Amino acid sequence: KKRFNIALLPGDGIGPEVISVAKNVLQKAGSLEGLEFDFQEMPVGGAALDLVGVPMPEESFTAAKNSDAILLGAIGGYKWDKNEKHLRPEMALFYLRRDLKVFANLRPATVLPQLADASTLKKEVAEGVDMMIVRELTGGIYFGEPRGISINENGEEVGISTEIYAAHEIDRIARVAFETARKRRGKLCSVDKANVLDASVLWRKRVTALASEYPDVELSHMYVDNAAMQLIRDPKQFDTIVTNNIFGDILSDEASMITGSIGMLPSASLSESGPGLFEPIHGSAPDIAGQDKANPLATILSAAMLLKYGLGEEKAAKRIEDAVMDALSRGFRTGDIYSPGNKLVGCKEMGEEVLKSV
Amino acid sequence: KKRFNIALLPGDGIGPEVISVAKNVLQKAGSLEGLEFDFQEMPVGGAALDLVGVPMPEESFTAAKNSDAILLGAIGGYKWDKNEKHLRPEMALFYLRRDLKVFANLRPATVLPQLADASTLKKEVAEGVDMMIVRELTGGIYFGEPRGISINENGEEVGISTEIYAAHEIDRIARVAFETARKRRGKLCSVDKANVLDASVLWRKRVTALASEYPDVELSHMYVDNAAMQLIRDPKQFDTIVTNNIFGDILSDEASMITGSIGMLPSASLSESGPGLFEPIHGSAPDIAGQDKANPLATILSAAMLLKYGLGEEKAAKRIEDAVMDALSRGFRTGDIYSPGNKLVGCKEMGEEVLKSV
Ligand SMILES: CC(C)[C@H](C(=O)O)[C@@H](O)C(=O)O
Ligand SMILES: CC(C)[C@H](C(=O)O)[C@@H](O)C(=O)O
Repeated sequence: KKRFNIALLPGDGIGPEVISVAKNVLQKAGSLEGLEFDFQEMPVGGAALDLVGVPMPEESFTAAKNSDAILLGAIGGYKWDKNEKHLRPEMALFYLRRDLKVFANLRPATVLPQLADASTLKKEVAEGVDMMIVRELTGGIYFGEPRGISINENGEEVGISTEIYAAHEIDRIARVAFETARKRRGKLCSVDKANVLDASVLWRKRVTALASEYPDVELSHMYVDNAAMQLIRDPKQFDTIVTNNIFGDILSDEASMITGSIGMLPSASLSESGPGLFEPIHGSAPDIAGQDKANPLATILSAAMLLKYGLGEEKAAKRIEDAVMDALSRGFRTGDIYSPGNKLVGCKEMGEEVLKSV
Repeated sequence: KKRFNIALLPGDGIGPEVISVAKNVLQKAGSLEGLEFDFQEMPVGGAALDLVGVPMPEESFTAAKNSDAILLGAIGGYKWDKNEKHLRPEMALFYLRRDLKVFANLRPATVLPQLADASTLKKEVAEGVDMMIVRELTGGIYFGEPRGISINENGEEVGISTEIYAAHEIDRIARVAFETARKRRGKLCSVDKANVLDASVLWRKRVTALASEYPDVELSHMYVDNAAMQLIRDPKQFDTIVTNNIFGDILSDEASMITGSIGMLPSASLSESGPGLFEPIHGSAPDIAGQDKANPLATILSAAMLLKYGLGEEKAAKRIEDAVMDALSRGFRTGDIYSPGNKLVGCKEMGEEVLKSV
């Protein structure tokens, strides 16, 4: 039997509920494929702030760092919204991303046939959308120096953030994106703002240079403003998108909303070596926390990504994906994706239904 | 009789066609309100590159600078796409914005009742959308220093762009936005990424501080990734949005696509004193240039913004707006907004129909 250490970071709001459900699904799918898991659960975000006064306690980080893969719930909540920046729950995400060096953030945006009506886009526009956004996650304007608020020579406050990419940072995320596109429909669209930003000029140059190593992948380039439009005009044109940290933040959220079911969307953040970080893309939803209303499917599908991308266990991953499709096909829906004619269930019951199908 | 000097910068692609139509409409609406215009037409962008080798010739800039208001067509085209950055047509826009100091870019995104079906969003989501995006246009990452591509200590190329805002730059665009919201439905949403970017932390602080001077305006804040989602989920929630240069670039294009008719949308770029720059938000559409297929309404409506915001001539502006609505109500449509049951017309004929109604 193979054994893996899994760090569970439930976090805040609905995080604990969805993690507890996803854990069960992960365990069953794994054991059917001969995998055994040792789970270690640790506080991060607001939960950690309340417990020990910092968003990312060292013990939590060490457990995550020493695991084979990390499953995270959600982070943040109104309660800590007025905290100073370094004492905000979101800082846990920064430290995790930065210190685990998970530079490659994979965010699928898929419209499931069962849920094609959920989008605010017309059905014929949304139906069949199936893209993967590859977002650079440990560089760019999120981490660039200089940064901060200072006083200029006129005695005036000035806020500065620096968008900066070195060639190797662009190359490694581009490689992940080319490899991803190769395993999908072979189309890669690199999104930048090379008509304005020098950081994007280098981005485009490096991505273009790598294309010759992937002759089976069709590379195109698009400006970010146009991409924001094209996602709405015709989202089906996209297969794989690669972009920087901040554009990826914006476009992946836009793409997820196009699917109409952000309660369904998982994500994976991968490093060159070391554990990956897997989490639903939705937030902590403090307004429904503890009420057994959350949709656990995004976290369950994140567990599937953990198996596939984190542990290389594709079969177990497939079991989970199929089980989710099956539960949906049998008509089970949480409130966020409910439509008349289906069966409205809570977080736990949705988990049970998926578990049955694993 | 009042006389005004108007600089016409037709630019590239469909620019000349739409400008020539809009000029006639402007002239008629003005003369009915006792206004006389002296037009001076000058090359910019690719047209100027072909003529004199630079995208923004000094004579063109001087004419623009000395005018009372500037009407611009469109800039750019495949032909110059491989040019080096400083020889690209788009540089004309940079120089114009920077040197005219037009820091306030107003971009309405409105779904006209006659065109509610044009959006890829469901009709009930798109119908009634009526927002104004106030984009900061002369600062931020578009102009910040340091910028460029250099070699780091490892001999590796590094691309750098700097997002930088001084307090007074934030204050002046925020004031324009508060004033704009006050004349609309009294709601202002400031979009930033204050959970990550220090430049946004200062942005939020300054906007918040100004709110007390506008007690009649309801101010809210939203992160840019969430804004990109909310524009799709429920665009009607927005009245006035204020944001920085790069987020404004992305979100205003996203918002324009939500209306489904970017051939309809005008824009105004205003300075503290000196002429404003008025232009359609669509591009130069080289694929249909010279074929009398372009939709001139965005440029005609830009002429209306020129009258209203540039010259303070609200009555003449209203004449143009009403004439556009009238031509639409009479069923005239260019190809981009055509739907069965309407009358398909070209650029010139659409212009004639508007002219009739002025
Ligand atoms: C919470 C926030 C700091 C974070 C980000 O901007 O990266 C989030 O929006 C995300 O996309 O994971
Ligand atoms: C052409 C380009 C440089 C420009 C910009 O990014 O500002 C355009 O997208 C716009 O929004 O006017």
